[in-house]
Amino acid sequence: MVEANLSAKTSAKTDDLSPTRDSDHPRDSLVAQFGADRPLKLDAGIALSPFQIAYKTYGQLNATKSNAVLVCHALTGDQHVASVHPVTKKNGWWETLIGSGRPIDTERYFVICANVVGGCMGSSGPSSTNTQTGKPWGLEFPVITIRDMVRAQAMLLDHLGIDQLFAVVGGSMGGMQVLEWAASYPQRVFSVLPIACSTRHSAQNIAFHEVGRQAVMADPEWRGGRYLIEGANPRRGLAVARMGAHITYLSDAALHRKFGRKFQDRTNPTFSFDADFEVESYLRHQGSSFVERFDANSYLYLTRAMDYFDIAADHDDVLANAFKNSPVRFCVISFTSDWLFPTADSRAIVHALNAAGARVSFAEIKTDKGHDAFLLDEPELFAIVRGFLDAAAKAHGLTNGAGH
Amino acid sequence: MVEANLSAKTSAKTDDLSPTRDSDHPRDSLVAQFGADRPLKLDAGIALSPFQIAYKTYGQLNATKSNAVLVCHALTGDQHVASVHPVTKKNGWWETLIGSGRPIDTERYFVICANVVGGCMGSSGPSSTNTQTGKPWGLEFPVITIRDMVRAQAMLLDHLGIDQLFAVVGGSMGGMQVLEWAASYPQRVFSVLPIACSTRHSAQNIAFHEVGRQAVMADPEWRGGRYLIEGANPRRGLAVARMGAHITYLSDAALHRKFGRKFQDRTNPTFSFDADFEVESYLRHQGSSFVERFDANSYLYLTRAMDYFDIAADHDDVLANAFKNSPVRFCVISFTSDWLFPTADSRAIVHALNAAGARVSFAEIKTDKGHDAFLLDEPELFAIVRGFLDAAAKAHGLTNGAGH
Repeated sequence: MVEANLSAKTSAKTDDLSPTRDSDHPRDSLVAQFGADRPLKLDAGIALSPFQIAYKTYGQLNATKSNAVLVCHALTGDQHVASVHPVTKKNGWWETLIGSGRPIDTERYFVICANVVGGCMGSSGPSSTNTQTGKPWGLEFPVITIRDMVRAQAMLLDHLGIDQLFAVVGGSMGGMQVLEWAASYPQRVFSVLPIACSTRHSAQNIAFHEVGRQAVMADPEWRGGRYLIEGANPRRGLAVARMGAHITYLSDAALHRKFGRKFQDRTNPTFSFDADFEVESYLRHQGSSFVERFDANSYLYLTRAMDYFDIAADHDDVLANAFKNSPVRFCVISFTSDWLFPTADSRAIVHALNAAGARVSFAEIKTDKGHDAFLLDEPELFAIVRGFLDAAAKAHGLTNGAGH
Repeated sequence: MVEANLSAKTSAKTDDLSPTRDSDHPRDSLVAQFGADRPLKLDAGIALSPFQIAYKTYGQLNATKSNAVLVCHALTGDQHVASVHPVTKKNGWWETLIGSGRPIDTERYFVICANVVGGCMGSSGPSSTNTQTGKPWGLEFPVITIRDMVRAQAMLLDHLGIDQLFAVVGGSMGGMQVLEWAASYPQRVFSVLPIACSTRHSAQNIAFHEVGRQAVMADPEWRGGRYLIEGANPRRGLAVARMGAHITYLSDAALHRKFGRKFQDRTNPTFSFDADFEVESYLRHQGSSFVERFDANSYLYLTRAMDYFDIAADHDDVLANAFKNSPVRFCVISFTSDWLFPTADSRAIVHALNAAGARVSFAEIKTDKGHDAFLLDEPELFAIVRGFLDAAAKAHGLTNGAGH
């Protein structure tokens, strides 16, 4: 199944290239480049070429290439899943789950995490250079879908010479990719763990995304999407978008527990529009730190991809048809207080998988942390992921060492 | 209890004054003006003077002045509760509930609805003219609270010579005012109906409001709040704020039922950032129509007033203390699918009222329409309001005619 892919080459980029734009030259990342002979065929009917995918790997690929785990990142995540982020200098976004001795054990598995196409950390996206013009794509970049992201990941696997993944794991938008992997490439995945996600974006979720996009586009510094060319940056609009989205990642209970009505560095209201309340100060920080590391147009593209996501629509509106007689092992995980992707959405996935005759286990984790629980210290999540992968590894003939 | 109020005078404003600014000269409204001898003493420690309150009345005040019902409007409402709005030309926002033969029957009750202080439909607020400078107040207007709104309403009642209200009714921010009426002026209200509200704004609600404010303030046309003086208008920022808030007024189920993932005037995605989905188109319309009738700074002030609202904090953090031995009859109403002011908040009010020994009835209405249910065609709501007021009227010695 692995095709010869002579045009794709891997180049390591390191910190000493900074401060080059991470969009084209991602720091601390590997980059797979796909030339004119290897276009990415998009759902929009466009062939994107050339393009590149930035990625990271952790652990060692075994001799039979049977221990690869693909991790799919969420809307604002990237490939720096288990190592320090080159921009923020913070730990990898899933270091609690992935690493030596962790549930996704890099002593045992070869972990791959790629920046999605449309992203802004080195995979081709609106902030990348359009080789035809020598300028950033901006809105000339084609609109992409979750399936396009997965197609690009499949091409990366070809490039790496990996036929089949042992597992695909991801939460939120990452979970959508996981489901799409199972639907589009059932023979190329042994097991999948879609977490805190859905097979289609709800009207409420589309609505929240649309508000975020309007916030970005309302900022005059967005310049019709040409801000990189014109030396501008819609920081304020993107910050507002992030603030609004961030509320949806937390539960009402978590916000109450963390902040309640506590004042920030004061005992009485100031009767002003300062950030009197801790929760206001926290949100403002979320907004301002986000714009340091994320591209506004990428935010538009990735939210749009999520909105378009609807697996059933691609299968005669019958979700079970997407997974009919699937050989894949599923482990569906949801969180009780997640109101962005309610646990009912995960139940719907499980019902469809049952109807399709697929092998599925389902864990609904009780927590008040909301959607973001998948990124937080959730011992039950860790135990479930470890247990499911252990059993799958056994079934897959993987022993404990990485070299087998 | 009614004080002589020689400085307050009432002037009727009519359509022929248009297109004057409604902020100072509201169309189709009455205006009570309060001079230097009648300042509004604000929670911020400032005496606002002069100031004015725009209001509407419906029905006739009876001879004993015992049939007055005060209706308190929500964040983006105004005094045009039961008659055509002079700007939008739409029906009054609560015409389903208030009018001849309606649950709040204007053949029987004298209905008063006043624009809140801080508003933009004729009561003093940030878009009003500061008489000291001859220019719109902008951010020089003092920050106001729910209690300040209620104080101004009490002064309006003095002006109208009304000692005691038969009832105070309102939903959302209007419900907060209703609760504040019961807490601050228990002798001046016979009965109250707080609907879809809370005794304090939650962290999540503060967070949503803060995002809305940031959206307004991020718009360069806001000009640090001086847009009216500088001939600008932060339309886009205010529209984004409204779009985000509007999502919180509806339930996930209502959005799904109304829009689902239906496309707007097309059968396939356009692979663009157009409003492909009906829900996007709907939200954009909500945003753009809102800015035609609302002032951006008023939006900041009124959201802030809601954020500051916390009745218990004013009573040693014991909610029951706010209503101790209250003679007021309470009818607390909530909606099961309201996630902005969850029904649990209303239960907390009821528990506090029980602890305070107050007379309370509670109705939790089952609906999937979300917070906005209080403004919609909800037969159960109408029946409950009618029944509660009928019983209260009997207890208050009100007969069916308006003249008694």
